[in-house]
Amino acid sequence: MSDISPATVSEATIAIDAMGGDFGPEVTVPAALKFLAQQQQQNIVLVGLEDRIQYLVSQHNGQRFQDSGRLSIVHASEVVEMHEPPALALKKKKDSSMRVAINLVKQGEAEACVSAGNTGALMATARFVLKTIKGIDRPAIISTMPCKDPSNTVHMLDLGANVDSSPEMLLQFAVMGSVITEFVDKKDSPAIALLNVGAEEIKGSEKVKKASVLLNDSDLNYVGYVESDELFTSNVDVIVCDGFEGNVALKASEGTASMIFDILKEEYQRGFWAKLTAALSLPVLNRIKTRLDPRRHNGATLVGLNGIVVKSHGGTDEFGFLHALEEASTQVRRDVISHMQEKMESLI
Amino acid sequence: MSDISPATVSEATIAIDAMGGDFGPEVTVPAALKFLAQQQQQNIVLVGLEDRIQYLVSQHNGQRFQDSGRLSIVHASEVVEMHEPPALALKKKKDSSMRVAINLVKQGEAEACVSAGNTGALMATARFVLKTIKGIDRPAIISTMPCKDPSNTVHMLDLGANVDSSPEMLLQFAVMGSVITEFVDKKDSPAIALLNVGAEEIKGSEKVKKASVLLNDSDLNYVGYVESDELFTSNVDVIVCDGFEGNVALKASEGTASMIFDILKEEYQRGFWAKLTAALSLPVLNRIKTRLDPRRHNGATLVGLNGIVVKSHGGTDEFGFLHALEEASTQVRRDVISHMQEKMESLI
Repeated sequence: MSDISPATVSEATIAIDAMGGDFGPEVTVPAALKFLAQQQQQNIVLVGLEDRIQYLVSQHNGQRFQDSGRLSIVHASEVVEMHEPPALALKKKKDSSMRVAINLVKQGEAEACVSAGNTGALMATARFVLKTIKGIDRPAIISTMPCKDPSNTVHMLDLGANVDSSPEMLLQFAVMGSVITEFVDKKDSPAIALLNVGAEEIKGSEKVKKASVLLNDSDLNYVGYVESDELFTSNVDVIVCDGFEGNVALKASEGTASMIFDILKEEYQRGFWAKLTAALSLPVLNRIKTRLDPRRHNGATLVGLNGIVVKSHGGTDEFGFLHALEEASTQVRRDVISHMQEKMESLI
Repeated sequence: MSDISPATVSEATIAIDAMGGDFGPEVTVPAALKFLAQQQQQNIVLVGLEDRIQYLVSQHNGQRFQDSGRLSIVHASEVVEMHEPPALALKKKKDSSMRVAINLVKQGEAEACVSAGNTGALMATARFVLKTIKGIDRPAIISTMPCKDPSNTVHMLDLGANVDSSPEMLLQFAVMGSVITEFVDKKDSPAIALLNVGAEEIKGSEKVKKASVLLNDSDLNYVGYVESDELFTSNVDVIVCDGFEGNVALKASEGTASMIFDILKEEYQRGFWAKLTAALSLPVLNRIKTRLDPRRHNGATLVGLNGIVVKSHGGTDEFGFLHALEEASTQVRRDVISHMQEKMESLI
């Protein structure tokens, strides 16, 4: 495990699809400027409609970063819409901010790309432009899960890029998750688990059972099955699953959290006494909100590609997008792509 | 839709696997007595270790129900353990409380069976003894979901009985869910949705896409896809999915809720001010707890069998088990099995 020298770090550049997400440059531009102010050795390229971006950079006093050469703008004339079919975006919008940002990674002009745009289009475009790492059939979406114990980090993949994954693909997801955890979290021999269902008549699908055999035969630190009620409390490092199941788990969790907070809000607004205690409880409620803030986990990685591509939640704000930028920056610093390529090379 | 006459209702008897669940007769016996006190026209048979059950019935002053003939005890010498392999329980424990209770339904001595025991063993035994309704390949587990709007009821199936379901099985689940909703909830033409993943590169697995075609061609009121973040807010009546995905969604939701409540508890105990505001917030917190109380949704049905079998959560208390008894009782009153048999007959 070799650390990158400061000299390399200073050259790192992140390309931002500035037009992506529900709020586009209104969020991406201020987040980029905040990132530049915080991370002295990183550069940013904002990709998208130049006039609009330049206007916002100036409005947020970001010209000093342009003057010092740490911030540049690359014009792209098209924007991929949030609900545009991925295949269409890939075929028709060759000058989209998303495509141009990914091209910069391909051309070596940026070390990572961050987008809050259409996930499907981002995946299709990134896969087409950057190609998968040799030995990997399909890229996957990986993210950290909010854990009850804040000192704990659990990575979960695939969160929705691949449905109908084969057992061999699940093994590849496990390898990718293991490398990410080893180099990003600096954790040796990460514990890998498969998502399964238990306690019922038949324990697990054929696919999961076969993947379990493959993982047992691998050199990974495979520890067995977890069920989805343990997502936030298990002490494994990586949870591996098909993208359908991962997406179902993630969204069921989001839906539950949002229902509970809606009910909390409703009940704390019902009548004078409730409102009074809500006001008194504010410091406590704010601590709870902070601990469960999904923005702190914003930034899923499209893993398995010859380049770092981080997907931010489309509806996030400046704080959330900043977190996605930090995620990309950490992966650049830890040289995740080289390690992933080496690992796959060793397995072929 | 024909209602059952009071004469029929008065004869209804529920067989309880009194030994099932984490707490066995300590929970099932008092719940049964409470049920008898509330529901004047229902009878109960408690199945299990006679001495133990009789002791608890006497201790809870339940002998009056025995005297009036509304409560009886049927001895069964064996108990299926919570983590016993289903096949073993089915093969070796022919005198288990679970098996004997299901036999009573088969023999027409009870109209429904309720158990808090081992789900897999219950499913395997019920299927072996009662057989599936003609036209149904495999029984499924159906339950109502807690909804943000308490006036709303959403049924979801399969919650874990079948993994690797075929599109044809998903169609059968949809038919079963539709009949349950039509007759239990008295709702005409229930809206059926398929659980899917969206917004990503490939929308849905092959299985789900094929099931969608089958549902479109059926006479059911099929309304399309829902994602798992809409489980608690959608206005559909039935959500259909494979048992793996249903179980993943349900348990991810349980895990999330339990994490949030643990964090709430932790933060409300941190320091004097937090404890004080917790005390002041008690009425609000209790209202929230009541609204989200999982015991109010306790009682999943093993649907598709020639008999009513309701599965209570293994770890539930008297209040939760009582709810499972009420669920069974409602299904008896609404004559769900005959309606299901008729519906399947019409489709063959």
